[in-house]
Amino acid sequence: MNWLDQVKWDARGLVPAIAQDAHTGRVLMFAWMNREALELTHQRGEAVYWSRSRHKLWHKGEESGHVQTVRDIRLDCDGDVVLLQVEQAGGIACHTGRESCFFNSLDHGHWKMSDPVLKDPAQIYDGA
Amino acid sequence: MNWLDQVKWDARGLVPAIAQDAHTGRVLMFAWMNREALELTHQRGEAVYWSRSRHKLWHKGEESGHVQTVRDIRLDCDGDVVLLQVEQAGGIACHTGRESCFFNSLDHGHWKMSDPVLKDPAQIYDGA
Repeated sequence: MNWLDQVKWDARGLVPAIAQDAHTGRVLMFAWMNREALELTHQRGEAVYWSRSRHKLWHKGEESGHVQTVRDIRLDCDGDVVLLQVEQAGGIACHTGRESCFFNSLDHGHWKMSDPVLKDPAQIYDGA
Repeated sequence: MNWLDQVKWDARGLVPAIAQDAHTGRVLMFAWMNREALELTHQRGEAVYWSRSRHKLWHKGEESGHVQTVRDIRLDCDGDVVLLQVEQAGGIACHTGRESCFFNSLDHGHWKMSDPVLKDPAQIYDGA
């Protein structure tokens, strides 16, 4: 059985995908993949997601240069969630210019932005 | 604005939630939360999810004893994914008796089970 057939795609043909920094263990981002995105991720060794808003494949870093080189692809016990270990180019995964998308921390009943912006998004997407 | 109102719940009233070991950084599991689950997680300081299959709140560890004490709650840049830092009771998050649910690693085109079973599931759920 093909490894892609063992993934339990949801009704939309998607699975959630979590990207984790292979070196620091930091959870960098969460996105979705369809079958083609996961196959391309494996073939290229770089993370490719499915953009639900743009309805197209999204080669992470195609505009920002912040590609994710994939070191490990895992599937959970239910076969319906993917976890990637990645090397994050530029050390920035988030479109806000931060290392990780998870920069809002709950602090006494308020979401507090707790991570620095490493690069101005205007600069990141300047050439796009 | 209430912190729960700042979460972008999907059409079903849910958000994806990732649980990460606060000490080792290992991604332990992925589940879903509704508003009540997230509120209870915050109030109790223990992870509470929404079981989509059983259509009810699921206080993680209620049967297995493998509760997750929550050290940090984060929200991503889009406000639609939650990340928990947890202390995992028993060192086992997965119902298969493994530390993490992400034990299937892609190896030359095959999913390979790469983590040991730390406790027999029959023993874990014996008293349930």
